[in-house]
Amino acid sequence: MRLVFQQELHDVQDRLVESAELVVSAITRASEAFRTSNVSLAEQVIADDEKLDQLTVALDELAINILARQQPVARDLRIVVSALRISASLERMGDIAAHIAQLARFRFPEKVVPRELRPTFDEMAAHDIEVARQVVELLRTTDPRLADSIRAEDDRLDELHHSVFERVLGEDWDQDAAVTVDTTLASRYHERFGDHAVSIAKKVLYLATGDWVPETIDD
Amino acid sequence: MRLVFQQELHDVQDRLVESAELVVSAITRASEAFRTSNVSLAEQVIADDEKLDQLTVALDELAINILARQQPVARDLRIVVSALRISASLERMGDIAAHIAQLARFRFPEKVVPRELRPTFDEMAAHDIEVARQVVELLRTTDPRLADSIRAEDDRLDELHHSVFERVLGEDWDQDAAVTVDTTLASRYHERFGDHAVSIAKKVLYLATGDWVPETIDD
Repeated sequence: MRLVFQQELHDVQDRLVESAELVVSAITRASEAFRTSNVSLAEQVIADDEKLDQLTVALDELAINILARQQPVARDLRIVVSALRISASLERMGDIAAHIAQLARFRFPEKVVPRELRPTFDEMAAHDIEVARQVVELLRTTDPRLADSIRAEDDRLDELHHSVFERVLGEDWDQDAAVTVDTTLASRYHERFGDHAVSIAKKVLYLATGDWVPETIDD
Repeated sequence: MRLVFQQELHDVQDRLVESAELVVSAITRASEAFRTSNVSLAEQVIADDEKLDQLTVALDELAINILARQQPVARDLRIVVSALRISASLERMGDIAAHIAQLARFRFPEKVVPRELRPTFDEMAAHDIEVARQVVELLRTTDPRLADSIRAEDDRLDELHHSVFERVLGEDWDQDAAVTVDTTLASRYHERFGDHAVSIAKKVLYLATGDWVPETIDD
């Protein structure tokens, strides 16, 4: 019975890793579609988000099923409850990747952001992809050091987000409203992506250390 | 034992209603601060968000505690798991109210949105407040008809959100970038608020009807 339960927890963990790998693929392709205005790649990312949603539903059902049959307590119980939370965060990360792809699609054949800001958005994208990769590793290894480095990536994303806003609100910003709107939303999406990774890191860290961290991510 | 459990479920429900009432208060005052550029009211809303966060943590702990001691199955189990999800959505609605208050504070003494769009934002605010009130009633009564009317409010919020974007992207939009950025974010916050209410409605509806509805809200 105990062995069965441990096997089921591993199954939950494997599915979280699988979902996180889909998120890496989504944000990597969304960033490419965003950078190169590749509308067919953007549409692929938007369509593929459905798979991640289905994985999330299946994982939730598995977790509820485990709670019902195995009646876990203490740390085992928190692992299952945390898995429910982590899967919801992974689904949101996939949704954000789809939003970034949608911006690329809507603006096609134009680029979403003006030339001067592209290096900044390329850097944000690189940190989003890196943070997603680290989430995969964190879920696979539960190594607490990864949680720290996810936080560091998120801090950098916040700095870049603020630098975009400073630029857009600067004296010499002469872009039209459409570009201003897209740049505002694109920057926010890139920054929010990191917030969800931090939220996942807090839950995994809690499981590794026992310190309960409340869900404080906002949107 | 069974009676104790039923009492605990009522306790969970009461706390969800209490959290939802804080959300009504937050969005009502945030909208007023936003409309009238009342910076002290805005700061109050931002400070009070902490209370809602604490209620959410306490509710999560209670739910986990119930799972551990009562080992519920079937519908009882889904009620407790849904409560965890609903409390997370309520916390996010409070965060959005705080975001709206922050926009008012940052732009003080200016108004956040240009005069021509104020009637639209007043209407969005009215629908946000109404949707929050309906969430309180839905959590109190679990009346499925309220879920339908929450969806209708959210549809209207989506229409208003799109009308704001049409206006901002229109030929004759002549506002500076700061106004464009604030208007974009303010419109998105007002629209997202309704999405979270719909997410709660789906979970309550599921509990009333047995149809499981996955978490599909995006951000």
